[in-house]
Amino acid sequence: MENKVYDYLDTLYNEMVDIRRYLHQHPELSFQEVHTPKYIAEFHEKLGHKVETNVGGRGVVARLEGGNPGPVIALRADFDALPIQDEKETPYKSTVDGVMHACGHDGHTATLLGLAKALNKVQSELKGTIVFIHQHAEEYAPGGAIEMIKDGCLDGVDVIFGTHLWATEPVGKIQYHSGPVMAAADRFEIKILGKGGHGAMPHLTKDAIVIASQLVGNIQQLVSRHVDPQESAVVSIGKFEADNAFNVIADTAKLVGTVRTFNEEVRDQIEADLKRLVDGVCLGADVQAEFDYFRGYPPVVNHEEETAYLAAAAKDVPGVEVIEDMKPMMGGEDFAHYLEHVKGTFFFTGAKSPEWETAYPHHHPKFDIDEKAMLIAAKTMAKAVIQYK
Amino acid sequence: MENKVYDYLDTLYNEMVDIRRYLHQHPELSFQEVHTPKYIAEFHEKLGHKVETNVGGRGVVARLEGGNPGPVIALRADFDALPIQDEKETPYKSTVDGVMHACGHDGHTATLLGLAKALNKVQSELKGTIVFIHQHAEEYAPGGAIEMIKDGCLDGVDVIFGTHLWATEPVGKIQYHSGPVMAAADRFEIKILGKGGHGAMPHLTKDAIVIASQLVGNIQQLVSRHVDPQESAVVSIGKFEADNAFNVIADTAKLVGTVRTFNEEVRDQIEADLKRLVDGVCLGADVQAEFDYFRGYPPVVNHEEETAYLAAAAKDVPGVEVIEDMKPMMGGEDFAHYLEHVKGTFFFTGAKSPEWETAYPHHHPKFDIDEKAMLIAAKTMAKAVIQYK
Amino acid sequence: MENKVYDYLDTLYNEMVDIRRYLHQHPELSFQEVHTPKYIAEFHEKLGHKVETNVGGRGVVARLEGGNPGPVIALRADFDALPIQDEKETPYKSTVDGVMHACGHDGHTATLLGLAKALNKVQSELKGTIVFIHQHAEEYAPGGAIEMIKDGCLDGVDVIFGTHLWATEPVGKIQYHSGPVMAAADRFEIKILGKGGHGAMPHLTKDAIVIASQLVGNIQQLVSRHVDPQESAVVSIGKFEADNAFNVIADTAKLVGTVRTFNEEVRDQIEADLKRLVDGVCLGADVQAEFDYFRGYPPVVNHEEETAYLAAAAKDVPGVEVIEDMKPMMGGEDFAHYLEHVKGTFFFTGAKSPEWETAYPHHHPKFDIDEKAMLIAAKTMAKAVIQYK
Amino acid sequence: MENKVYDYLDTLYNEMVDIRRYLHQHPELSFQEVHTPKYIAEFHEKLGHKVETNVGGRGVVARLEGGNPGPVIALRADFDALPIQDEKETPYKSTVDGVMHACGHDGHTATLLGLAKALNKVQSELKGTIVFIHQHAEEYAPGGAIEMIKDGCLDGVDVIFGTHLWATEPVGKIQYHSGPVMAAADRFEIKILGKGGHGAMPHLTKDAIVIASQLVGNIQQLVSRHVDPQESAVVSIGKFEADNAFNVIADTAKLVGTVRTFNEEVRDQIEADLKRLVDGVCLGADVQAEFDYFRGYPPVVNHEEETAYLAAAAKDVPGVEVIEDMKPMMGGEDFAHYLEHVKGTFFFTGAKSPEWETAYPHHHPKFDIDEKAMLIAAKTMAKAVIQYK
Repeated sequence: MENKVYDYLDTLYNEMVDIRRYLHQHPELSFQEVHTPKYIAEFHEKLGHKVETNVGGRGVVARLEGGNPGPVIALRADFDALPIQDEKETPYKSTVDGVMHACGHDGHTATLLGLAKALNKVQSELKGTIVFIHQHAEEYAPGGAIEMIKDGCLDGVDVIFGTHLWATEPVGKIQYHSGPVMAAADRFEIKILGKGGHGAMPHLTKDAIVIASQLVGNIQQLVSRHVDPQESAVVSIGKFEADNAFNVIADTAKLVGTVRTFNEEVRDQIEADLKRLVDGVCLGADVQAEFDYFRGYPPVVNHEEETAYLAAAAKDVPGVEVIEDMKPMMGGEDFAHYLEHVKGTFFFTGAKSPEWETAYPHHHPKFDIDEKAMLIAAKTMAKAVIQYK
Repeated sequence: MENKVYDYLDTLYNEMVDIRRYLHQHPELSFQEVHTPKYIAEFHEKLGHKVETNVGGRGVVARLEGGNPGPVIALRADFDALPIQDEKETPYKSTVDGVMHACGHDGHTATLLGLAKALNKVQSELKGTIVFIHQHAEEYAPGGAIEMIKDGCLDGVDVIFGTHLWATEPVGKIQYHSGPVMAAADRFEIKILGKGGHGAMPHLTKDAIVIASQLVGNIQQLVSRHVDPQESAVVSIGKFEADNAFNVIADTAKLVGTVRTFNEEVRDQIEADLKRLVDGVCLGADVQAEFDYFRGYPPVVNHEEETAYLAAAAKDVPGVEVIEDMKPMMGGEDFAHYLEHVKGTFFFTGAKSPEWETAYPHHHPKFDIDEKAMLIAAKTMAKAVIQYK
Repeated sequence: MENKVYDYLDTLYNEMVDIRRYLHQHPELSFQEVHTPKYIAEFHEKLGHKVETNVGGRGVVARLEGGNPGPVIALRADFDALPIQDEKETPYKSTVDGVMHACGHDGHTATLLGLAKALNKVQSELKGTIVFIHQHAEEYAPGGAIEMIKDGCLDGVDVIFGTHLWATEPVGKIQYHSGPVMAAADRFEIKILGKGGHGAMPHLTKDAIVIASQLVGNIQQLVSRHVDPQESAVVSIGKFEADNAFNVIADTAKLVGTVRTFNEEVRDQIEADLKRLVDGVCLGADVQAEFDYFRGYPPVVNHEEETAYLAAAAKDVPGVEVIEDMKPMMGGEDFAHYLEHVKGTFFFTGAKSPEWETAYPHHHPKFDIDEKAMLIAAKTMAKAVIQYK
Repeated sequence: MENKVYDYLDTLYNEMVDIRRYLHQHPELSFQEVHTPKYIAEFHEKLGHKVETNVGGRGVVARLEGGNPGPVIALRADFDALPIQDEKETPYKSTVDGVMHACGHDGHTATLLGLAKALNKVQSELKGTIVFIHQHAEEYAPGGAIEMIKDGCLDGVDVIFGTHLWATEPVGKIQYHSGPVMAAADRFEIKILGKGGHGAMPHLTKDAIVIASQLVGNIQQLVSRHVDPQESAVVSIGKFEADNAFNVIADTAKLVGTVRTFNEEVRDQIEADLKRLVDGVCLGADVQAEFDYFRGYPPVVNHEEETAYLAAAAKDVPGVEVIEDMKPMMGGEDFAHYLEHVKGTFFFTGAKSPEWETAYPHHHPKFDIDEKAMLIAAKTMAKAVIQYK
């Protein structure tokens, strides 16, 4: 049966590319997805799958009942985009100003839809049930997974598989890791409440830009000085907001960023030290600040047996090279929540074109994927589904 | 004649307040003024003054011919607002999101309109011609003055007077200074071209926020270390723009700011040192940057004789206390351009209410004026006009 | 035989404490050791061991021939101190101003001397030869090991063992790790060549303290932004030298520090980025700098078989608890060089007293060890020596 | 009489150069002067002047009674040196390691001794009394002046004159200013009490160098952001002391610097803000600090009438060009104390050689003076003394 599915996926490749490019041109931000879930639901409906919409908010769940009894296997793909301006020069670049599929979720969705169509073709031979979980809002905590689970998307599920297309690893490679594979991902927001005024009269103000810039510098010490060099941790600031006229001194400045850790003690310490740095800068500059720290996704912890199963299955897929035991990644993923409820594994599918000298990293304004990776991912999941007992 | 005018101004006070509050609620940004100049032109037209519109772009010039021969005296008021969100709690707060009269130009305009109406009343007694120059775009270089002058607003003018309502000096006080009274005001823009990416993978990026923050810190040394402590200079950054998602590392970051100096040598040095700091930070961080430095208004240099004339005249105005020889201000003003063409002086009219413990500085989101200052300013200019020979 | 040696070591404990405290009171800096090697040589001579002095400069090598044929086993202890002011309040505190045994090398030496005396007692039963390598200058690259090896200290040696007393791990515990266990340890020196002058006239100077401080801040980004969070790296600055009168602006400022890495690529990158940061700061501040980067010890890479042997042997020693597989340490050690020539392993012996709530870290002015650790280390090495085939 | 004195000073010029060079080779630090006051006292004794030593500690006061009744005129020269390493390549460079006449006090002393010898020659013609005040310890607050005054050096004095040789102004020029001419000069010391440790284990430490460097950066904002740009203020740090081995993390770091102001309000504010910055950095870094602020010399405030007198007198001296009204200087001087007790003025004597393209600023390791300035200073003071009524 595998080979039949592989062949059919090959013939579906162009359609998968079309789907991906359509989604790429019409990205939607986390928790604001309207057209994407509609598009997905219609696709499954045309295949005759049982479809639920608005699962946990904006998620879509489709079910394909196989012709034979067997396990309930969930496959998950996320479908939200990011607030990044697309700077690629491609025919399929984003048509939405300031919004972009810069993390490959369009490819995840196209992969899962193509796979659904292929598995649908062999429905009578399939054992058990395939649950296609199309998740909204992966990019923004608290994420869509929690609510979709509350809404029942995992009910009856025996095992779950998910993958991330990875643009900086060569297409054709599959990577896996048992145990913690992705980091805890927290968000913080700091708003310096200075005192604005005329750009020419600094002594009558408390310059929020200067104060916040100082804080950005101090924050570098959290990783360079406060964290055990043997531990992994990242603190990054993505937004510095202080948008005044050139001749105005900023009344306020806002910093928004993320903290990534694998170890709960380090996570606690960074939160505490960040708070302390804000307090210190405020005391020194005689200002107030608002500080909020939002605990985001927990680490993604892959189950040992299912990870070994997936790795072994992948080795049999034509065109796939399985890389032994990857290093964990600092990125966060709310796939973490599924793995707290059912067994499963989250693996990585290389998506760097052999024609690129270097690949733009995820979340870069010029991010792109080698679309062939979708075929690799689809075949690998097909194999995992068909062979699972 | 003075006393008649003073009395009439007193009766016009409520109308001046209404005008000011109307303008305050309907602020327009520099070079985008549409309704304000129309409002001003209609006011003068109703008085029967000869009015020109679209002078040098969006300026309005009105002329009142006195009943007797005499000098041509120009009075100037600016009418643009600032990109600041009004945070006052007053019935007359701005109705336009993110735009605000935070520098008192609404008051300048109301003062000049009230004065025009009062002088119109004594037209037959007046000597010479009064030219009311209502200037757009004072807040944003290159400003409106240059083009209004090119368009002839100073043609035939013998002398010019202007004032700034000043919210941090008590209402009732007039301040003057001969020679350089306001600074050269330049604008600069720096765009750090880093390399964006995922917030969890800093080593694959060049973090534009961290680099730009470092630059903000370094720029403090321009004044603290590079400028002779006996000289006056200011470098302020009003905008720090890097508006990404929390889990993205910034691809670019933009700083926009101002440099204020009284001395051409210091001005040249700061421009050169700023350029050098940008180059150094870019070399150290292995990134590129765009750097633009726009020379703005020159210093406002008051003419000695006209300044002495104005100071003496002000002393005779009821309710006015003249402060001996103020310290120059770091603010810039394109009134500077008028004084390069004709003689004249630019003075300051206190606008801090006796009921305020402290006043919000100009360009602050809660900036306001004591409206009585408009009466003081109008009477002082009336006196200066009537008595001039 | 082991038990006889253990018992004898117990009776020698007080003497080991005396030796350690004598050395503690008379510390000597790296490459300046005079009395310490003399003291060691005389100790071995009294035991009738064959002694060589001035090995590779200031090292001492002593040989004990066992009564039976067998392997040649080297044991190494280092004996230099650090330029740190002893701030402990103990009767045995350093008598030399600014010099201190703040890393436990006094304890290493006392351990090896006590062990030599104990093994000497069972000489006739011993198999093979024990080579006691007393090394000078471990604290300062290029270190004493290279020259001692060139001078023949490893000639004929089959295996080498060494240990570090570790003040932050509980006494009684032995830790081991196969593969890279200690980091590459490099040194760098940066001298900012500013322009000095009077403290009141900054504009005539280029303030080397401000420039060097800026560099200290920038250097934090090397680890926080440039290094893969999954890699371990440290950059620390130990010396900031700019020692002028309070009213002088510094002509020069010197920074001296260390870089620790396990991975040659990361090491190269940090060296290159450090150079670039210096260049950038110099360009921005219009000054010159001297930059020197000295590659120090390579990583200590323990041999797999010998590490397993040592761990197993240690488990049999009474009073010892062996901890499974420690995390590698960022410290450097020129024991690395021995392991490039012969097989062996370097392990860690806990030296934190159960009476201390927290221990002062190595190189701290109040550093101390629980002397009982010497007995643990001596017994473990005795066991390793006696049982080796 | 003037011309006779001028001619005699010309013949004494070589001796003045010899004296200055002798002192230059034998500099002594503030409050540690032993040989210099002895040398001065012997010089005056040989001339038969009445000499007091140990005045106010280490000062020397000599008196020359003129042949006729008249005013009591004090002339003051300071004689201490600085803790700076002489880096000049001249035959007369300092012979004392780390100590140097880097501010011209050697020249002040040679000038006054030469002048004493010249005036002694015309003793019978002189009116009144000349009091030669040779002051120790001008460079280090609280300075020598206070105690010398307590010890009576100004008793009976009618007027005092003093000058500073100024290496960055051309020789031949005399500069004066009525009112505040030199700044208040304060000293501060900040000691960061971090937590030291091994350079490879930053997370167990609190890195005092990183924390103090951050503070150095923050301190730049005091002048750039907190002080009215129209006011003059300087904050400079001359010493950054953290002298550890390269592989140690600093336990403490000490900053020592100076604050210069003309305005008591600004002075208070900088002291308060400095304290606040230290508190803020300590809070943020979770460390303690010691902070001391020593108020040093008050501003030097020249008396109007005596300043005008000196300026007029100087204009008559051959070879002197008087510069109209200099800008005040940020340097401090305990000459301030004399002027709080008696009338007088402190003026500046250019000492930059026409052969130098640029001059090294005061307190620079290569500082030097054009010795001809001593002749200019001596003649100007001679004129002031002879003509005073």
